[in-house]
Amino acid sequence: MALAPGLARAADANPAAPPADPPWTQSLGAPVDDRPYGQPSQYVKDVIRRDVPWLTATPQSSVSFTPLQDQPGIITANGLFFERYHAGRTSVDPAQHRLMIHGMVDRPLLLTMQDIQRFPSVSRIHFIECPANGGMEWRAAQLNSLQFTHGMIGCAEWTGVTLATLLNEVGLQKAAKWALVEGADGAHMARSLPVEKCLDDCIVAWGQNGEALRPEQGFPVRLIVPGWQGNVNVKWLRRIQIGDQPWFTREETSKYTELMADGKARGFTWLIYAKSVITFPCPEKPLKGAGLYEVRGLAWSGKGRIAAVDVSFDGGVNWTRARLQEPVLSKALTRFTTEWRWDGKPALLQSRAVDETGFVQPTLAELRAVRGVNGIYNNNAVQTWQVQPDGSVYNVQLA
Amino acid sequence: MALAPGLARAADANPAAPPADPPWTQSLGAPVDDRPYGQPSQYVKDVIRRDVPWLTATPQSSVSFTPLQDQPGIITANGLFFERYHAGRTSVDPAQHRLMIHGMVDRPLLLTMQDIQRFPSVSRIHFIECPANGGMEWRAAQLNSLQFTHGMIGCAEWTGVTLATLLNEVGLQKAAKWALVEGADGAHMARSLPVEKCLDDCIVAWGQNGEALRPEQGFPVRLIVPGWQGNVNVKWLRRIQIGDQPWFTREETSKYTELMADGKARGFTWLIYAKSVITFPCPEKPLKGAGLYEVRGLAWSGKGRIAAVDVSFDGGVNWTRARLQEPVLSKALTRFTTEWRWDGKPALLQSRAVDETGFVQPTLAELRAVRGVNGIYNNNAVQTWQVQPDGSVYNVQLA
Repeated sequence: MALAPGLARAADANPAAPPADPPWTQSLGAPVDDRPYGQPSQYVKDVIRRDVPWLTATPQSSVSFTPLQDQPGIITANGLFFERYHAGRTSVDPAQHRLMIHGMVDRPLLLTMQDIQRFPSVSRIHFIECPANGGMEWRAAQLNSLQFTHGMIGCAEWTGVTLATLLNEVGLQKAAKWALVEGADGAHMARSLPVEKCLDDCIVAWGQNGEALRPEQGFPVRLIVPGWQGNVNVKWLRRIQIGDQPWFTREETSKYTELMADGKARGFTWLIYAKSVITFPCPEKPLKGAGLYEVRGLAWSGKGRIAAVDVSFDGGVNWTRARLQEPVLSKALTRFTTEWRWDGKPALLQSRAVDETGFVQPTLAELRAVRGVNGIYNNNAVQTWQVQPDGSVYNVQLA
Repeated sequence: MALAPGLARAADANPAAPPADPPWTQSLGAPVDDRPYGQPSQYVKDVIRRDVPWLTATPQSSVSFTPLQDQPGIITANGLFFERYHAGRTSVDPAQHRLMIHGMVDRPLLLTMQDIQRFPSVSRIHFIECPANGGMEWRAAQLNSLQFTHGMIGCAEWTGVTLATLLNEVGLQKAAKWALVEGADGAHMARSLPVEKCLDDCIVAWGQNGEALRPEQGFPVRLIVPGWQGNVNVKWLRRIQIGDQPWFTREETSKYTELMADGKARGFTWLIYAKSVITFPCPEKPLKGAGLYEVRGLAWSGKGRIAAVDVSFDGGVNWTRARLQEPVLSKALTRFTTEWRWDGKPALLQSRAVDETGFVQPTLAELRAVRGVNGIYNNNAVQTWQVQPDGSVYNVQLA
């Protein structure tokens, strides 16, 4: 890669000597015993989760967004992982917490956290995305921001016991087809899941990125439903009831359905289809003058691994294949990069993910043709960033 | 897996009804806008880094240890990643920070953080271990603790530009054989590295587990030298000087050498050889009664991927092969697990890692036979945990 413009040759700064010595090079820093749990640098205080106050009636039934524009890799920092609550961030005493598994099972169980952590465990890296991510964009480009258009997503290493292990322990009865999973929050957040998915790859998780689950993520225990929309990954998990039909809870009737153009609603649309977004450049991270850049982004699919990501600089006319960063993991964020020599003229940047099943991320026009614009959920459309001659970047939608 | 003892059957607790409703199930939690950067639960306040005050003369030139007994997976939480300072935790203003690359190069450079972040980037998951990890254990078992015997290690997803990219940019001259890498801390921490390693897999990193580097890890930029001892992964990286021979800095003469039985010292022993430890059970996490348990641990090698881990329950007489958790990444922590039915009698637990080169983790007796007991560094011996009939676990050494 040729030298990027703006790089200072050391010759400009007396290459015979090291750079100037700021005060920190000549003094002691802080001791090891002053901060037993570490915190970010004082210089990155603007890298935070942000909420949209007008989005919901109360800040307890709301969402805060991950600053994807500042996420370097595939792991989302625990302190920056997006929040979505139905009754606020719930503080649960792990000593008092119990998980009940009952219903159409042979041996119902009431488990303490110690019980749950004693079972055989797995650690897996998966994303969680709220299906309302991008939900404000169905009708028109509304928010000039990567954080607010795509930030209802995070990716972490989750550790716990597989739900299959627990269901094997209780013994599913023959008629068992559905599981109701319920949280211990004030909303009693509850969703119905097919037993088939429960036995496939779900995890009753207590660990997140090297430590206990964060309260935002359901401390002390949550469900991980890899590749399925965030709300079924029930937090503060307290109850799993096995039955032979879905429950049609509030969260699967009044919410989390896809309202179609004809007024009917699709239900149980849990799966996150292939999706991607360019994280640099983006509205929060403009370009600084013409020249060579590395374009960076993230891709993901609830159906498995990302197979390829293509990037366009002209609004989808021409495409170039991006590099995928190893490891490429199933149902996890995947990082992609590609070089781009910007000539300083207006440009329309897009990325398009393809997953291992061959599913290709659709355009917004394609999605609207099928789904109309009444809905909120499951917008996995190609995002377009318009680069202006001054390097600023805007959220736009192509006809 | 059969039911672990102590699990409560829901029948004991009226399976017709859900468990009792604690207050948090009947009230609103905290709003999304109260804590834009998240923190752990108030109930896990004892999961912290810890230091050993008598270990060093001052707490600025000291170490704090990762609580490995509470690390669920392969990623170490940024807030729990061990610290090792030579002049304290240094607070560097990224706007003022510069990285100089000079010496036997054709085009010396002085780079700002914006320059560094503009280059093509990579994200890779690697461990960093201080070679003094376990250094107190050479002569005898001293500390009854996993955190203090093995906690000078952490594993993170690091993002940055490869050092190869930067060296290609400045143009290495023909005689170039060594690089001096120097930090901006008050210690001016500096080490010599072979250019061959620099070009192989080193990263000039600015990202860590989803956010900017933590100050403890060298914010705004550090060197990652995958698989080599921690101190060469220079933090607050400010200068790379290219030369034709090593510098023999203070940190590679008075420190970080292996003092042998005959009084001579081996230098430039950078490589971390295959190593592993059982993280459950351990002194901090005892057993609770006879029965079936999952034994868990971590393994790593600076030479590449872990190929296998064997576990012994009788002090190394018999061995059983553990399961390795995917993904198994090169020069990264690798999680292993195996089942163990404890009969309640005394037992001696050990783990032994083998890496992809075939290198087998040695016993402490084997290490002592070669290296004596004068040294501090590079103790990668098999750890023995003695389980007592009451379930407590002790750090012991076998003859």
